[in-house]
Amino acid sequence: MAGVVGEGIMARMNAFYAQSGGVTAVINASACGVIEAARKHGDLIGKLYAGRHGILGALTEDLIDTSWESAEDIRALRHTPGGAFGSARYKLKDLEKNRAEYERLIEVFRAHRIGYFFYNGGGDSQDTTLKVSQMARQMGYPLVCVGIPKTVDNDLPVTDCCPGFGSVAKYVATSIREAAFDVASMARTSTRVFILEVMGRHAGWITAACGLAGHHRDEAPHLLLFPEVPFQKQAFLEKVSETVARVGYCVVGVSEGVRRPDGTFLSETGLKDAFGHAQLGGAGPLLAQMVRDELGLKYHWAVADYLQRSARHLASRVDVAQAYAVGRAAVEFALKGHNAVMTTVLRVSDQPYRWKVGRVALEEVANRERMLPRDFITADGFGITARCRNYLQPLVAGEAFPPFEGGLPQYVTLRNRAVPKKLGTEFKI
Amino acid sequence: MAGVVGEGIMARMNAFYAQSGGVTAVINASACGVIEAARKHGDLIGKLYAGRHGILGALTEDLIDTSWESAEDIRALRHTPGGAFGSARYKLKDLEKNRAEYERLIEVFRAHRIGYFFYNGGGDSQDTTLKVSQMARQMGYPLVCVGIPKTVDNDLPVTDCCPGFGSVAKYVATSIREAAFDVASMARTSTRVFILEVMGRHAGWITAACGLAGHHRDEAPHLLLFPEVPFQKQAFLEKVSETVARVGYCVVGVSEGVRRPDGTFLSETGLKDAFGHAQLGGAGPLLAQMVRDELGLKYHWAVADYLQRSARHLASRVDVAQAYAVGRAAVEFALKGHNAVMTTVLRVSDQPYRWKVGRVALEEVANRERMLPRDFITADGFGITARCRNYLQPLVAGEAFPPFEGGLPQYVTLRNRAVPKKLGTEFKI
Repeated sequence: MAGVVGEGIMARMNAFYAQSGGVTAVINASACGVIEAARKHGDLIGKLYAGRHGILGALTEDLIDTSWESAEDIRALRHTPGGAFGSARYKLKDLEKNRAEYERLIEVFRAHRIGYFFYNGGGDSQDTTLKVSQMARQMGYPLVCVGIPKTVDNDLPVTDCCPGFGSVAKYVATSIREAAFDVASMARTSTRVFILEVMGRHAGWITAACGLAGHHRDEAPHLLLFPEVPFQKQAFLEKVSETVARVGYCVVGVSEGVRRPDGTFLSETGLKDAFGHAQLGGAGPLLAQMVRDELGLKYHWAVADYLQRSARHLASRVDVAQAYAVGRAAVEFALKGHNAVMTTVLRVSDQPYRWKVGRVALEEVANRERMLPRDFITADGFGITARCRNYLQPLVAGEAFPPFEGGLPQYVTLRNRAVPKKLGTEFKI
Repeated sequence: MAGVVGEGIMARMNAFYAQSGGVTAVINASACGVIEAARKHGDLIGKLYAGRHGILGALTEDLIDTSWESAEDIRALRHTPGGAFGSARYKLKDLEKNRAEYERLIEVFRAHRIGYFFYNGGGDSQDTTLKVSQMARQMGYPLVCVGIPKTVDNDLPVTDCCPGFGSVAKYVATSIREAAFDVASMARTSTRVFILEVMGRHAGWITAACGLAGHHRDEAPHLLLFPEVPFQKQAFLEKVSETVARVGYCVVGVSEGVRRPDGTFLSETGLKDAFGHAQLGGAGPLLAQMVRDELGLKYHWAVADYLQRSARHLASRVDVAQAYAVGRAAVEFALKGHNAVMTTVLRVSDQPYRWKVGRVALEEVANRERMLPRDFITADGFGITARCRNYLQPLVAGEAFPPFEGGLPQYVTLRNRAVPKKLGTEFKI
């Protein structure tokens, strides 16, 4: 950051932090890590501005001055789900195709003396972080860009896991175990088949996590349907039928992204989101109908949807700790001058589970999805292997209950006071 | 129980306990209360037999000898969801129409020297308990019958609340609060409307409990759809639209049993369960489509289904305590000779909340549903009143987390050893 120090006075640069894409139960723990680290290094970093609704806040010069928030409220971010500053599903276009957007970002950063760019998101967002760092270099603007991993889908490469995933994993494994106790009670005269639809558009990590609920073949879940394994209707129905005959009931975990052999999603709504991804939902009810029509069995289904990724009340303690650590480390790496990197979780050992924070060049991360390895899925395609279990188990470990008041978890809503605008120009999104 | 004491020896009678209907996160806490109380009074009660799959276990002479279970495992029932002995959706017919079923019950009870009948269920089950007591009297068989309330629907009369409800209430209020934090983060570029479908076929108690999540009109949930209030499409869409304009997003809690003005369910699957009730599901997705088609807003929906009633990890401490207490009290009332009664929860005071266990004659309970009072619903039909909040608040109070191991809640599965059959006859269900 030599370029910003000069003229005899130490000119502290400000920092910018934004949340991007679908939020999680612990993305605010990363925000907490970033803000607390920035405050701790107040001699080196001026103000920490957050983008209101992610990168849109930077583009529209709608910045939040986090210095108005009390230490107590910032600490409460650690146990508050959602994105405290607002997130955005907004992907910046290629540098070549839309130079104006990147130039605008730099213009806003320059106006507010922002020397650090922290971007908290998944693969698309890490791609944006990389491009912003390239643009800054091209424009000769001194900016240290550090990505912070976040995604319930656990599909970022290099990092051992993605903050946000461990808590969803804990939620779905707990939920399917609990629902299985219910179904087991009812099966004699009522529900025989229970289907839980979980998130994970392309990668089956969350579906795999359902498998943590059971330890032998008669324990639920009896059947998992991964997006990585083409859906075979007959094999599915046979497995359900055989399980009901043997166990008395059958519990299924299915990914929202399960696909037919021709590659189309089992259930497409026909809608697409801002990133051009198909909006899914309904694989669970669809399978339930199949079970009723073809096997004549009584069913129930649940679609947890946002409940699974916002369930801070059941967060994994390991996940919370990692989310915080990758946020804090982003600031520390930036202060050491590491640019165009993403913080990562490194697994040091399996048993006992040990981890530390690392970093990776953004080039190695951007726009790459990590699927569930084939050897994490059993040969028949319907379950998880011991290897998968070894990987997943530590990520759901430990509880980190939020404070409860009057029977409900207490979450913080920040003041989110705006930074006065400095530019006379507007930017159309 | 004068009739069973004679011939110079104290002939201890055995007891029978069965779970009935849809299970809950805390029905096993009632079982725990019954069993621990029966063990404590071992001088008066012989063995405690449980019906495998509820009343079916009695009809088919498939009894479970709970004396094989360790004190530790019985204690673990207090934190285990589902029905540990199996439940059943099976309603005995009228005494006049199907005398044979009742006679069979008495035959099985006589064979196993059962002098106490404890039946843990909702309105239909209390009706059965009443009829069994009437039949025993007609047949001159000495049997003390005590009902134990249980239903997530909270629709039993007389008792201030039904064990099982408080925990679902806590789950839905927590879940909708958490999901609202998620939606608030995403609304700028993505999801504007989130819809959570909850249980409660005829009575809107669970829907009302969603309302605990917010305290003023801009706080989620913004809109509740009760089964007691006929669904008005235009009013619904206007309220959604107005909320999105004002708050930026809209969170909706909807009962699975919401009905059109003509009385038909908004979403019927066309299936009926064993009690002849229509099997529902899908009001949430249906409303979501309406929002998309008529308002063009991006939506997400969740159907928690069994997750809400099995979520022992988030049980209300008050609910667990009450479930245990109504089970224990059933044994104590029976030993005092109270016959054909149901144990109840009596509210002694609101603030501070105090309660105790009471009892009511089964005639006053059987086959009566308690709807949400009109003055618990706001004038516009879309929210809850302060009165409703005062009633609900104490029921979700306190946490009672189960033990966790390896990141997941640890629940008990009992041995459930069968009692050797004594009758040479089979009974066809």
